[in-house]
Amino acid sequence: MDLNERQEKILTIVKENGPITGEKIAERLSLTRATLRPDLAILTMSGFLEARPRVGYFYAENAEKRVMNNQLKKMTVKEYQSIPVVAKESSSVYDAIVTMFLEDVGTLFVVKENSILTGILSRKDLLRASMGKQDLSSIPVNVIMTRMPNVTMCEQDDMLIEVANTLIQKQIDGLPVVKKIQQNGEEQYEVIGRMTKTNITKAFVDLGDEHQRS
Amino acid sequence: MDLNERQEKILTIVKENGPITGEKIAERLSLTRATLRPDLAILTMSGFLEARPRVGYFYAENAEKRVMNNQLKKMTVKEYQSIPVVAKESSSVYDAIVTMFLEDVGTLFVVKENSILTGILSRKDLLRASMGKQDLSSIPVNVIMTRMPNVTMCEQDDMLIEVANTLIQKQIDGLPVVKKIQQNGEEQYEVIGRMTKTNITKAFVDLGDEHQRS
Repeated sequence: MDLNERQEKILTIVKENGPITGEKIAERLSLTRATLRPDLAILTMSGFLEARPRVGYFYAENAEKRVMNNQLKKMTVKEYQSIPVVAKESSSVYDAIVTMFLEDVGTLFVVKENSILTGILSRKDLLRASMGKQDLSSIPVNVIMTRMPNVTMCEQDDMLIEVANTLIQKQIDGLPVVKKIQQNGEEQYEVIGRMTKTNITKAFVDLGDEHQRS
Repeated sequence: MDLNERQEKILTIVKENGPITGEKIAERLSLTRATLRPDLAILTMSGFLEARPRVGYFYAENAEKRVMNNQLKKMTVKEYQSIPVVAKESSSVYDAIVTMFLEDVGTLFVVKENSILTGILSRKDLLRASMGKQDLSSIPVNVIMTRMPNVTMCEQDDMLIEVANTLIQKQIDGLPVVKKIQQNGEEQYEVIGRMTKTNITKAFVDLGDEHQRS
């Protein structure tokens, strides 16, 4: 939406002086209230300004940012998650490397029966182990994995933007999508998916595709 | 921007019948042209409709998508690139693994003098090499690297959305940001940066931060 010069002036006045009444805005512009009415209506209807009876006009949160926010809020883990790739606690480091390689993933989730999460293995963990002189096929992954409760997880209804922020803040490549379940009176986490920077990158591309389809 | 019921009806009519004159819209709604004037003004000023004299109203490309597009177009490689991490052609695979590990990157760019790109090494290349029985410190990286011209590159002014799409389409983790230069009458590429899914994920988070700051 392109604003005309007078509308831009009104926005500036409200940004700096709001809340401010229509009369006061008119005064500052040396115009009548009636002249301003259409501009104020347009700015309010378009979300640039908010009007409160008997108080005046406020500068509304930037309309563009609100649109962006609406789009981002719609994007959840459920819609973008991948299939989890898992290893058993008793698997060898060698087998885990082969799995990571064949499945082309950067993170393996270590699980016990019923897909209950017990730990996580990053490429870095496996690379570090493979640089030692040990026999990789004789070390079980649960020796080198990061174990619960030190695993960062997410759930299907989480917003993508939150997960992206977690990946950046914690400097990790991926995290498991889990479902909380009660088992033997304890809270456990069943692994049902995988979220990675690849999924976030796909979501970013989708934002652009939206545009191209329009 | 929230549209009222009448504005939504107008949009639907224009979507289905545009271009259509104001008079015709008024007719379909059993209203006068004068009654509709403010609604049409608002829809036009907000970018939902476009008006062409003597032709009528068109449905404009979705305003949300246009806003999104504007934001995305502003995001370029320059703004989000990281510092490149490079290896010399003569470096050993062992040294390359150590570099990748210490620098915490998923991709190494292999260069000759003056940072001219000659190849690229992915985590997968190194992992594959480290699973063999060879002595990693005696194999130079140029034996296992993907070499020019088979390296996907980008430039500083490329749009982030294009790079993200390339990463997804080619299933790669990162690519070098290069500057074309002429050397000995040949086109060469100087490595000046690095773009990865991590950078894209940061850009995605920034879209949300924009919102949170507002």
